[in-house]
Amino acid sequence: MGIQINGKGLLIVLSGPSGAGKGTVCSALRQQAPELVYSVSATTRPPREGEVEGISYFFKTRKEFRRMIDQGELLEWARYVDNYYGTPRRFVEERLNEGKDVLLEIEVQGAKQVKECFPEAVFIFLLPPSMDELHARIKGRGTESEQVMTDRMQAAREELNQIHSYDYVVVNDEVARACHHIRSILVAEHHRRDRIFKEQPDWLEGI
Amino acid sequence: MGIQINGKGLLIVLSGPSGAGKGTVCSALRQQAPELVYSVSATTRPPREGEVEGISYFFKTRKEFRRMIDQGELLEWARYVDNYYGTPRRFVEERLNEGKDVLLEIEVQGAKQVKECFPEAVFIFLLPPSMDELHARIKGRGTESEQVMTDRMQAAREELNQIHSYDYVVVNDEVARACHHIRSILVAEHHRRDRIFKEQPDWLEGI
Repeated sequence: MGIQINGKGLLIVLSGPSGAGKGTVCSALRQQAPELVYSVSATTRPPREGEVEGISYFFKTRKEFRRMIDQGELLEWARYVDNYYGTPRRFVEERLNEGKDVLLEIEVQGAKQVKECFPEAVFIFLLPPSMDELHARIKGRGTESEQVMTDRMQAAREELNQIHSYDYVVVNDEVARACHHIRSILVAEHHRRDRIFKEQPDWLEGI
Repeated sequence: MGIQINGKGLLIVLSGPSGAGKGTVCSALRQQAPELVYSVSATTRPPREGEVEGISYFFKTRKEFRRMIDQGELLEWARYVDNYYGTPRRFVEERLNEGKDVLLEIEVQGAKQVKECFPEAVFIFLLPPSMDELHARIKGRGTESEQVMTDRMQAAREELNQIHSYDYVVVNDEVARACHHIRSILVAEHHRRDRIFKEQPDWLEGI
């Protein structure tokens, strides 16, 4: 009997504060790690030129999106300005059941929601190379009101405080390095004894 | 302030049942991962031609070895046939304090001893590609007595049962693959949030 240790796919949640470069790292991963499945979000915003249904987004009317929320079909969702964005549960679960690893690149608040229904997911917190970058982001162009600055500072603090519920911390000092670290985390997680034994408890019975 | 997340080195314990190929994987790692420090054992067996003190082994008299045991200078030790083998604690601790990762390739019984004084080490259990290989090893050339076979079977079962106290399981189906998995585990462990925060709790105070 050959020993196989990769069972069900892993759900990887890549999150972190605004300005950490989640989107950039995720785009680079798409190039370098085609073995990963990238979750497709649902949104109520209208498609832009070139965007493809089911690849860029699942485009939904507000009514459809509301129904998805009500029926628990979204792992997480949020409203930004006038539009809703969320992660359809079925797409993720189907890929995991096929044995694929699925990567979710989402905001910190969304990640918190995912942790409630997928505590076994791998949570990676991406940080910018220095705190100065976060500060620069918060200060913006210096034209904002004091209230805007205070609100942003508070939002950043709340995001950073969530780091304590993450499994891993990756610093985005260089995109290729961050990608390497994320891929290594994935490989390692597939070899964690407690994951392997949950999936294949009949392993050692051959002896 | 730049964010640095690598602090103290990690102690990695590579163990597993006899016949898993620990030595082969460790030799391959020496070639591929020169950033790792490989622990040097102490032994009472006489040096063979070409072996160098402090590189191949630390060669000790029985009296010296006994003294090391008595004074707690060994992380683990065992007797094989007429000779003693052990891992000097100081060598390991000095390299860890320098920020180096140290790899210990040892028997299952030794790994258990290390876990007692170094619970924060990373424990990797190496398995052969199939259970047949372990069986073949136990059966040997078929010339052994039934008692020898029964003893070996019992020893193998005891070794395999220790898998439950390991952090990771790696199957040695291909040496290069096993090395890649071990190196990925190391990278991942350096990014574990609970390790990072133990070492640098002042991290998020910049905001």
